[in-house]
Amino acid sequence: MDRIKSIDLVNTTQAYFATAAVTPAGRLVHVAGQVGNTKDGTVPEDYESQIHLALFNLRSVIIAAGATVKDIAKLTLYVVNYDAANRKHVDHIKRFLEGHRPAITLVPVPKLAVSSWVIEIDAIVSQPDPSPPPYLRAAAETHDVIIIGAGLAGLTAAHEILRSGLSCIILEARNRVGGKTWSVPLADGKGIVDLGAAWINDTSQSKVHALAKRYGAELIKQNTDGKAVLQDRDGSCSSFDYGDLPQFDGAATRKNVAEIRDIVEADCQAVDSWRPADTALDALTLEAYLGTRGASDAAQATATVWTRAMLGKEPREISALFFLNYCKSGGGLLQMRSDRKGGGQYLRIRQGTQLLSKGLASSLPKHTVRLSTPVSLVLQENERSIKVEAAGKVYSGRKVITTVPGASLKSISFFPKLSPVKRAWSESMTNGYYTKAMLQFSSPFWVQRGFCGLAHSFVGPAAVVRDTSSPEDHKYLLTCFMTGAPGRSWAALCTSDRESALLAQLGKLFGVDDLRDQFVQMSCYEWSLDEYAGWGCPSASLTPGVLDALGGDGLREPCGSLHFAGTETAGEWKGYMEGAIRSGDRAAAEVLSELNRSIVSRI
Amino acid sequence: MDRIKSIDLVNTTQAYFATAAVTPAGRLVHVAGQVGNTKDGTVPEDYESQIHLALFNLRSVIIAAGATVKDIAKLTLYVVNYDAANRKHVDHIKRFLEGHRPAITLVPVPKLAVSSWVIEIDAIVSQPDPSPPPYLRAAAETHDVIIIGAGLAGLTAAHEILRSGLSCIILEARNRVGGKTWSVPLADGKGIVDLGAAWINDTSQSKVHALAKRYGAELIKQNTDGKAVLQDRDGSCSSFDYGDLPQFDGAATRKNVAEIRDIVEADCQAVDSWRPADTALDALTLEAYLGTRGASDAAQATATVWTRAMLGKEPREISALFFLNYCKSGGGLLQMRSDRKGGGQYLRIRQGTQLLSKGLASSLPKHTVRLSTPVSLVLQENERSIKVEAAGKVYSGRKVITTVPGASLKSISFFPKLSPVKRAWSESMTNGYYTKAMLQFSSPFWVQRGFCGLAHSFVGPAAVVRDTSSPEDHKYLLTCFMTGAPGRSWAALCTSDRESALLAQLGKLFGVDDLRDQFVQMSCYEWSLDEYAGWGCPSASLTPGVLDALGGDGLREPCGSLHFAGTETAGEWKGYMEGAIRSGDRAAAEVLSELNRSIVSRI
Repeated sequence: MDRIKSIDLVNTTQAYFATAAVTPAGRLVHVAGQVGNTKDGTVPEDYESQIHLALFNLRSVIIAAGATVKDIAKLTLYVVNYDAANRKHVDHIKRFLEGHRPAITLVPVPKLAVSSWVIEIDAIVSQPDPSPPPYLRAAAETHDVIIIGAGLAGLTAAHEILRSGLSCIILEARNRVGGKTWSVPLADGKGIVDLGAAWINDTSQSKVHALAKRYGAELIKQNTDGKAVLQDRDGSCSSFDYGDLPQFDGAATRKNVAEIRDIVEADCQAVDSWRPADTALDALTLEAYLGTRGASDAAQATATVWTRAMLGKEPREISALFFLNYCKSGGGLLQMRSDRKGGGQYLRIRQGTQLLSKGLASSLPKHTVRLSTPVSLVLQENERSIKVEAAGKVYSGRKVITTVPGASLKSISFFPKLSPVKRAWSESMTNGYYTKAMLQFSSPFWVQRGFCGLAHSFVGPAAVVRDTSSPEDHKYLLTCFMTGAPGRSWAALCTSDRESALLAQLGKLFGVDDLRDQFVQMSCYEWSLDEYAGWGCPSASLTPGVLDALGGDGLREPCGSLHFAGTETAGEWKGYMEGAIRSGDRAAAEVLSELNRSIVSRI
Repeated sequence: MDRIKSIDLVNTTQAYFATAAVTPAGRLVHVAGQVGNTKDGTVPEDYESQIHLALFNLRSVIIAAGATVKDIAKLTLYVVNYDAANRKHVDHIKRFLEGHRPAITLVPVPKLAVSSWVIEIDAIVSQPDPSPPPYLRAAAETHDVIIIGAGLAGLTAAHEILRSGLSCIILEARNRVGGKTWSVPLADGKGIVDLGAAWINDTSQSKVHALAKRYGAELIKQNTDGKAVLQDRDGSCSSFDYGDLPQFDGAATRKNVAEIRDIVEADCQAVDSWRPADTALDALTLEAYLGTRGASDAAQATATVWTRAMLGKEPREISALFFLNYCKSGGGLLQMRSDRKGGGQYLRIRQGTQLLSKGLASSLPKHTVRLSTPVSLVLQENERSIKVEAAGKVYSGRKVITTVPGASLKSISFFPKLSPVKRAWSESMTNGYYTKAMLQFSSPFWVQRGFCGLAHSFVGPAAVVRDTSSPEDHKYLLTCFMTGAPGRSWAALCTSDRESALLAQLGKLFGVDDLRDQFVQMSCYEWSLDEYAGWGCPSASLTPGVLDALGGDGLREPCGSLHFAGTETAGEWKGYMEGAIRSGDRAAAEVLSELNRSIVSRI
């Protein structure tokens, strides 16, 4: 229930803020003006980076006060050089508020207390009473380790725990295993589509490749024979050999795009993806960072394709350090984006990637995985006992491993509260818009016309298109990635208009007038509505300032007997199946090390 | 216990304000923007005078709400012509907050509601619940009059009360009498040093001179034979005849300094030091006032020596009216600063000034003075009974006279609360930094070199130096006054560095290469840490606006059966022993008049 009540007049209900907000009787947190600096005082030059940092600083204060964004009653924004025609703060404030509607006053000012500051935000927040620890019934079951989530991370951890001789169970909210791997059969029996994770490789992704071999996966090499296509900002299309740069509008532009790509590659190689730390890079949005490196409009547009295709966001919504660190964890920008040997999109699994989760689950002892058992509460009673309430039943353990995405941790009550670092992570991890639509055709018309199926578009609706056919199944698919702003516009359409928009774009990309007669069906799933996936797929991302504040191992550090896994916490291949598996291994090793140590100490 | 809780992030704990401040459940005071005007609407032109007035107006609102500065949760400062390189408000806000850390937002603005306003401060304040009157045990003793403080004021009042046939006791917090008169013997037996008050005269200070005669004080005339020294802003020294003006850097400057001195003298002579009232003068800092009179840098520097040597503060920290009124109470600027006949520093007492307090105390009936009995509570039960709790015991009287310095009143609980005027006085009276260091030498080397021992310095560490020798005791002392900003820097040194810094300065002032071989020892006492002295000596002072708001007799008006004495309340020689004695006389007369009147009315 909302603690802050909004008051509106007849003409204000549509605004993203309320005309007034009412605080309940109780303590109020009066927040000093928060500005766009990092914890060491670094102030980026650009307005949007400062907005991100100021909002994160405000979030940190709110967390320190034991409150949440939903407890904000009033915001006052002081803005230098305010431009009513270009209200850049609005999207960021809306994202920050996540639908909460406090009262807001905006005050344009000639300057702020420090000349480099361009935005300052102060706030009044209602401080909730600290909750007493809940009373839980006696545990119905007791195990050494309780794992939350039966995706690749949780299933991997369970295997490791059991292999060491300890007992464990997995509590899974969904009625299936696999998490963000979900393979569903096509209606005409021609194989499956992967609604979530789809690609692996057999070089740098050793863990997932080993699983694929273990469970008999038939691997399909991603097609890169034939021309790739670029749809430019004016909607026109040009083709180029896979691996080359597109033509763009001139040699200078092409050179700049190549230079910027190389700078990003070099800068991301310099990041430690286990413990990313570079305050200057984390102070900037990716867009501002690229600006400081001399990016042309075409280079910014190219980077927009990267961020949309990888994270569903715009470069102005992501910390430069987060992006570089994400790329680095997959071997670098070039490798992560590659569809060839060693790349992030090299191999698909004919049976679908959920094969791996199903294989892992079926080789666990009976009743290890409890489906449709969403966890509502985690209570750390003392150093030796941690209780989990799920679907009305209480489970007791010595350790808990959560594989839940950061954003989904908000759906679980923790006693004692998670540490400020974990709360900052959980509240800051947000997904952009990202939906895959798999369009099935009766024939691979693009191959017949000399294309490999890969296309990039600066205009959309699809930002990226890839061939996901399975010739042995006579299954011919183009997977369209609708992401970011164009993706949201597309998502607002009805299903038939969605199909028409994509068929029109694909026709344009691959030079076909009308694809209607070859079109069979479209499959897609709205991960943005999926609470258990953290409201998005493949990965949530962070705005400037958060990584810097969380510190190197912030995401991985346990909170007492509660350990953290999931692909977001991985040092390698974050956001990928490989990262999930590795995180499960790492968390299991942590737990085993501590439990074994405590056994020794008791002898 | 603090009612307002601060919230900080890792990098904000060193700031003078908090990142956020939490108000307890309860009533909030929402303060409208307070600006730098006096109660009749006078607005001084300069920024700092306005800051002082705005802060005092805010204080008045807070007092009216029954709260204190410690209850402030949030300040928002609106500043016109804000200059990040010259943040003049910071020191004033820090002094105002006295270590309390609310959340603060500063908003530079192009203008305010009235064109002459340059700063506006609004606030959110938590309003404490009114305390119920405390329950006190039955009184262990009953007397007509209870006096708080066995300094010269309290001892004088006791003599007057007893002389009229009424009974009284004195409750003294310290384990000695004398208050800010404190004479301690030198280690080598060569007489004493006065750690506090030291000088009297035999013309305009009739009361203290009469006491000195009564108790057999041997008087030492202040030496003014020989050259005085000025250390200029560049550290260079020049000598001049005592009573003349120093050379400065040119005739025009010298003329300006003389003119400004004469203007100040004339303006101070126009003030009624009993009931100082001049809104225009109280609206200004002394610095701003001197600016309106055309003071050159040298004249401002000269005035800085005055305020440092007299009050430990800078001219920008003091109301012009307060300063003029303080001088006038000692006969005027020239007389108060004079070391000759009639001046403030004409005579010293060979046995030390504490002789007077000891004499007064020893001629009181046994058990009149109760040492080590700090008062914690004053409760006015009704018109005929007032109770005092001190050191766990309850004393009952018909009247109480407090001689406690204004600032120290904060350490005592009063029921009912003191009037708003008294609280404004108590909360506004602050001391600058002021420490005397008495350096003993084996010979009066300065006299041997033709100096009288008086020196003024614009650079410090000592702002003023005076000869405080007692030739008959073979005691050769230079007393250094370390005050204001240079004094604070000096105080931060360790004892041996303090000695070295002063020896170096004295060497420079009096043209001696190395004083080490003649130096015997240094004595000093930190009055700024002394709660019972109001955290300072000789006198606290007021910022602009306070005198004007308190009104003529504000400091002296009784609160019911509680009467006020102490040198701060004197009409003549405020801050001096003479003022203390006269205030004791005046308060005793008030009490006797009322008690006698009430006897008459009962007949």
